[in-house]
Amino acid sequence: MSKLRVQSFAISLDGFGAGPRQDLENPLGEHGPELMEWFFATNVWRQMHGLGVGETGVDNAMAERGFENIGAWILGRNMFGPVRGPWPDDSWRGWWGETPPYHVPVFVLTHHARPPLEMDGGTTFHFVTDGFESALRQARAAAGDRDVRIGGGVSTIRQYLTAGLVDEMHIAISPVLLGRGEHLFGGIDLPALGFRVAEHVTTKAATHVVLSR
Amino acid sequence: MSKLRVQSFAISLDGFGAGPRQDLENPLGEHGPELMEWFFATNVWRQMHGLGVGETGVDNAMAERGFENIGAWILGRNMFGPVRGPWPDDSWRGWWGETPPYHVPVFVLTHHARPPLEMDGGTTFHFVTDGFESALRQARAAAGDRDVRIGGGVSTIRQYLTAGLVDEMHIAISPVLLGRGEHLFGGIDLPALGFRVAEHVTTKAATHVVLSR
Repeated sequence: MSKLRVQSFAISLDGFGAGPRQDLENPLGEHGPELMEWFFATNVWRQMHGLGVGETGVDNAMAERGFENIGAWILGRNMFGPVRGPWPDDSWRGWWGETPPYHVPVFVLTHHARPPLEMDGGTTFHFVTDGFESALRQARAAAGDRDVRIGGGVSTIRQYLTAGLVDEMHIAISPVLLGRGEHLFGGIDLPALGFRVAEHVTTKAATHVVLSR
Repeated sequence: MSKLRVQSFAISLDGFGAGPRQDLENPLGEHGPELMEWFFATNVWRQMHGLGVGETGVDNAMAERGFENIGAWILGRNMFGPVRGPWPDDSWRGWWGETPPYHVPVFVLTHHARPPLEMDGGTTFHFVTDGFESALRQARAAAGDRDVRIGGGVSTIRQYLTAGLVDEMHIAISPVLLGRGEHLFGGIDLPALGFRVAEHVTTKAATHVVLSR
């Protein structure tokens, strides 16, 4: 059965999944990139960006797993780009250039309609304006037997999580403090939602946990 | 210079330092003891309780460090015992039997006066009714050149932390979810208080971080 999964989502020691003040220069908010240091060192990331060979241990294995058996993605609007309000035009095509690393349909949550955007390498961005449950239905239909991955950000994950729709989460706790920003689990009772710690593996760069139910 | 330190204080993956519903049977709240699994396996703990030899790796080294150069402790009332309101009598003498593991003066924050309680092995409990800053002054005077350790619980640590009085914290993040209880860092901006991650070392049992400023 197709699962709804969160993968390779990093939080700080104090629980923040993004720093404050996201904008074009800081897609992950101030100090947000520090959350992803573990990921930037992996072979997955470095190959993806033509940076040569990277780390191939536990961090990389966890990163690789995030792309296995994924048939569709769901992204919050802010993860797709820094544009707020109605789209001024179709010039913003995502953070990732003409060949985004998804290679499957990607459903972007937004309040503002826009035609689908077909990119190179198999990624098509679909803009969903009728709610997060509709986005999930469409993503499941596109994914078939494969899983749907929620890319983020924090508010998108929290929306699916509190609705009881998320099946599995791989969270990487990075050794940084953010102090402010978007808190991933604040006010959410994970055991009450049925989650337990299924895996716990640590590296110099991060503490990886898989929460499942 | 004498420091105010938090040591071996464990939190869950979702940030709780104690579970809900503390009482005589559950001094750490429901599921609270799961936070301390890493500690219960250490040689420090096992020797302390006459349980034979324990683990002597990183977890034990971090536990040992918590007792080094400590000249006085500060405890919240709930950490001293389950009694709430005025002391009905002097029968409650702490959770630890007649020879508590402190071996130095311990200052207990309470709203209800009580004479000092001298135990075996060098521990004397002093009951401080005129506030957390007074407790710190008394603890510093007792500790001399050595450091003062805050034993907990969560609300006591938060009180000293938000007042800008804590110098160093060793936090152990345990691979458990609590969902509810007392959140250690909720609403506290650690970088704004000057904290940074000074050490990060992980084991199968916990992610140890030392936050200092």
